Amino acid sequence: MSKVKCQITTSADGFVAGPNQSEEHPMGEGAEGLHDWAFETAYFQEIHGREGGERNVSDAVVREMSADVGAEIMGRNMFGPVRGPWTEPLWEGWWGDDPPFRVPVFVLTHYEREPLTLGETTFHFVTEGIERAVELAREAGGDKDVAIGGGAETIQETIRAGLLDELLVNQVPVILGGGARLLDDIPPEVKLEQTRVVEAPGVAHLFYRVSR
Amino acid sequence: MSKVKCQITTSADGFVAGPNQSEEHPMGEGAEGLHDWAFETAYFQEIHGREGGERNVSDAVVREMSADVGAEIMGRNMFGPVRGPWTEPLWEGWWGDDPPFRVPVFVLTHYEREPLTLGETTFHFVTEGIERAVELAREAGGDKDVAIGGGAETIQETIRAGLLDELLVNQVPVILGGGARLLDDIPPEVKLEQTRVVEAPGVAHLFYRVSR
Repeated sequence: MSKVKCQITTSADGFVAGPNQSEEHPMGEGAEGLHDWAFETAYFQEIHGREGGERNVSDAVVREMSADVGAEIMGRNMFGPVRGPWTEPLWEGWWGDDPPFRVPVFVLTHYEREPLTLGETTFHFVTEGIERAVELAREAGGDKDVAIGGGAETIQETIRAGLLDELLVNQVPVILGGGARLLDDIPPEVKLEQTRVVEAPGVAHLFYRVSR
Repeated sequence: MSKVKCQITTSADGFVAGPNQSEEHPMGEGAEGLHDWAFETAYFQEIHGREGGERNVSDAVVREMSADVGAEIMGRNMFGPVRGPWTEPLWEGWWGDDPPFRVPVFVLTHYEREPLTLGETTFHFVTEGIERAVELAREAGGDKDVAIGGGAETIQETIRAGLLDELLVNQVPVILGGGARLLDDIPPEVKLEQTRVVEAPGVAHLFYRVSR
């Protein structure tokens, strides 16, 4: 069966985003540098239709974790800064006309909405929780893996539901001091197995197998 | 000048000890396995006067960080489970007649107490805060380094005061779900530089240079 996997960047104090996320500060305040290591990779440039970037250790790591993804799941807060019911003009994501996913994306939300297609990516809005989202993503992705994009709450829900198989934490030497913590409210019954640790400039790639 | 350095083990969710620390559970509940990787090293066996243990990657790491230590600082809560004023019979630490430090140890406390010598280790009780403790430890240790033993609060105080130079986080794939977090209340002005990442079985050794 296909795996459910997640790669996410955290600060050294365990936050995936800083405090006060907003349209102006999608990653929260102070978190601008959190993803610099990723932006520098050739993989990141490629998926955004650009040339250049580094073919370094981190590039190999993200390429590996991004391979064989058939569908993606993300939380409403990762999809956009809108909270509560959808309002006109409908928010269409952070990623412009050609979002870099190019697989079906399932957005967890409490508010129904018609699917949205932009470029090669269709966003489906799921109101029935993480189990249903994983079910739909598996159906859509066939034999391929399901990627959990984020944010922190969605990853936590997936872990608590016992649905996450692999977790890659890209830990960067930044202190955020507040915001959304990756591993909050995870019960100790959740077991992690460290499968690999990769050193790269400015980031430690920590691979875990997850079970519950 | 000598460095102030700290090596500490954390769970994957960033705790150095689990919830409800007590005389029965010195590391808090659920944290029994947190230091298994360290107990298995030959270094740990040696400092406790025993033979055996593994001469593995982690052994080399702890040996390196433990070298050239002239004095150690620890918080009252690491020294013992006693809270509030010292009461008879006076708590003499967790470590028996021959504590493994064998350098002067400065214990931060709000309550004055005469020095305590056990084997080759003398514990001095400092009531004037972390700056004074570092000053005394530097004097006692000469050209050698000062080690911050823990726990979390003492390490945080050292970092916030801008006194910590090097931090080794030994991150193990365990979820504690609560307890004392290592990097809590650290302001974003604190800068970390990732100097090295070492993979070892069941633990990731993350080396940082710290500045403020």
